[in-house]
Amino acid sequence: MRNTPTDPLPLAQALIRCPSVTPADAGALGVLEAALRPLGFTCHRLRFGEIENLYARRGSTGPHLCFAGHTDVVPPGPAEGWRDDPFSGAVRDGVLYGRGACDMKGGIAAFVAGLTDYLAANPDAPGSISLLITGDEEGPARDGTVKVLDWMAGRGEIPDMALVGEPTSRVKLGDIVKVGRRGSMTAWITLFGTQGHSAYPQRADNPIHRLVRVLHRLTAQPIDTGSQFFEATTLQVTGFDVGNAANNVIPGEARAMLNIRFNDLHTSASLTEMLHAALRAEEARYEMRVECSGESFLTQPGPFVDALRRAVLRATGAEPALDTGGGTSDARFIARHCPVAELGAVGSTMHKADECVPVAELRDLAGLYRMVIEEAFA
Amino acid sequence: MRNTPTDPLPLAQALIRCPSVTPADAGALGVLEAALRPLGFTCHRLRFGEIENLYARRGSTGPHLCFAGHTDVVPPGPAEGWRDDPFSGAVRDGVLYGRGACDMKGGIAAFVAGLTDYLAANPDAPGSISLLITGDEEGPARDGTVKVLDWMAGRGEIPDMALVGEPTSRVKLGDIVKVGRRGSMTAWITLFGTQGHSAYPQRADNPIHRLVRVLHRLTAQPIDTGSQFFEATTLQVTGFDVGNAANNVIPGEARAMLNIRFNDLHTSASLTEMLHAALRAEEARYEMRVECSGESFLTQPGPFVDALRRAVLRATGAEPALDTGGGTSDARFIARHCPVAELGAVGSTMHKADECVPVAELRDLAGLYRMVIEEAFA
Ligand SMILES: [Zn+2]
Ligand SMILES: [Zn+2]
Repeated sequence: MRNTPTDPLPLAQALIRCPSVTPADAGALGVLEAALRPLGFTCHRLRFGEIENLYARRGSTGPHLCFAGHTDVVPPGPAEGWRDDPFSGAVRDGVLYGRGACDMKGGIAAFVAGLTDYLAANPDAPGSISLLITGDEEGPARDGTVKVLDWMAGRGEIPDMALVGEPTSRVKLGDIVKVGRRGSMTAWITLFGTQGHSAYPQRADNPIHRLVRVLHRLTAQPIDTGSQFFEATTLQVTGFDVGNAANNVIPGEARAMLNIRFNDLHTSASLTEMLHAALRAEEARYEMRVECSGESFLTQPGPFVDALRRAVLRATGAEPALDTGGGTSDARFIARHCPVAELGAVGSTMHKADECVPVAELRDLAGLYRMVIEEAFA
Repeated sequence: MRNTPTDPLPLAQALIRCPSVTPADAGALGVLEAALRPLGFTCHRLRFGEIENLYARRGSTGPHLCFAGHTDVVPPGPAEGWRDDPFSGAVRDGVLYGRGACDMKGGIAAFVAGLTDYLAANPDAPGSISLLITGDEEGPARDGTVKVLDWMAGRGEIPDMALVGEPTSRVKLGDIVKVGRRGSMTAWITLFGTQGHSAYPQRADNPIHRLVRVLHRLTAQPIDTGSQFFEATTLQVTGFDVGNAANNVIPGEARAMLNIRFNDLHTSASLTEMLHAALRAEEARYEMRVECSGESFLTQPGPFVDALRRAVLRATGAEPALDTGGGTSDARFIARHCPVAELGAVGSTMHKADECVPVAELRDLAGLYRMVIEEAFA
């Protein structure tokens, strides 16, 4: 027995109409709370620093499925780039436009719609369902998901499985389930030599030549060729600066910046040691600062990933590919606590002007999320 | 029959007391003219742009020996670095101090002293002796020696041989005769790639990686191992700049600057082609600008170099080494016209604070220059 499915469009539009550019909430979480309370959710507004976050839970027993996402959005950029006001939620030719339409207010609305229908069909649903919605995913991500998870851990509310609603589909809805993400780290290197005159290089020690050798050592061969679920690790030198204007002066130091996206064959610690080894080969004085914005993680195939596969197969008729590519998301924080995977809309317009999602895709996503809930508790 | 040799010290001091930091003359050439006229020299003051130059000649027949040098000096730098006023010509413990003491007002004074004694002993000296003294050797060298040589060529006064009085001796007076100089060229390279996000390097084309490969190609092996009279060619990368602050952005272009000091196995044209070849190997778009401040030159062993050797052997008891090392001098311009070599004081303090020359070395240099004149006309 099926009634007409709940339409996610009104909630998606209501969320888009809150101009919640990080760190502003602009009423977005209030809109979401108002949708969840009638469904039986207990809502906790959690403010950390200048960031509003929401943790809402229905049920108190296990298993506990958490849907994680964010209501903050990246700035819309120049108004000329947009056909519509980016915060109007305009629908044209069956497509919803607006900042956050696909990343990820549309996804949140789709989950709430699917959830509404699931609960209508299963009033005595087993276990717990929660939503962890932050306002700090597009920002520094310091006062959002990480701190909410700490708060949840303090209350013994760590979920058994988590679904992140980022727009991870590549070409059509559900073609990809992200079961991990590469890690990301940045290193800033300063290599010291001995300043001198280019006519007498034997009396100087050119730090540019040494740094070129170090970087050649690091970039001449691939670091690896990938692993079962991961693409190859990539190292990109994103900066190299000396700041010397005198063509006949060998400068005293040279600086480089590099960013590494790494798979599960490495950790930021093992890669830091790789960088030190490449630098030590020069036997020159250097300084290096490293920042890791997230280790790589992988949710191994298992019951939760299987539930997602079944849901996608039911909803789309095709198996999803398990993927770990792309940038980072808050899933990296959740992975420290429980199995986590990401499944959402097609993200091709995310962070761009005229960000949009077809209304039909949003409705399909609501149906898919309902099946995810069904399969997770099956 | 020998009288007491003329002392070069008073003229050296008089020249040092003119603060002739390029492009200022500050009366230096007037002091020199006043010393040359009584010796029978016809003096031509030649002003090009803001630069004063002096061409003085005695005699009108060949052979014609020209002494070339400069009265301009580099700035003294911070006064605290000096024990004496850099333009006072102080003598302490038998050492003459001051900006230009060794580079090269002392050398000019020594030549005039040796010349005075030579002419006293040879009133009917054969041939011609000239002095080509510029005020633009330490500056851009555009309105000095080059233009005076053009003027001389226009009058049919190109010499048969030229001695440049730069302080070329290494440890003791006359240990080195410079018979050539390496060439010097600078290249500014911009290599273009495709900007992108470091998480998706496959969609970008990192110009830093390409430029690192180009520079590694150019610096991994020596360009040559030197030639009979020349040290090895050296290539020094003196700049590498990107100006990208975002650690996750692959920039769209990268720039490098490099300076090559090259021997007689190369020309600036052949080296420019070598740079193009290293760049073409990347199959990327690039721009390169090249400036050559002087091709390499060599005065082959022959009568003039032999005359210098004999003079040094007579004056010091030891053969000079024929050398082509170090930076550039105006000899590179004279080499286009006639055999040229450089012989002068020990230059260890040139361009430094407390620049100085022992008075005894200045007197020995005067005697050596007298013998050079004798041997050149022998
Ligand atoms: Zn997002
Ligand atoms: Zn000089």
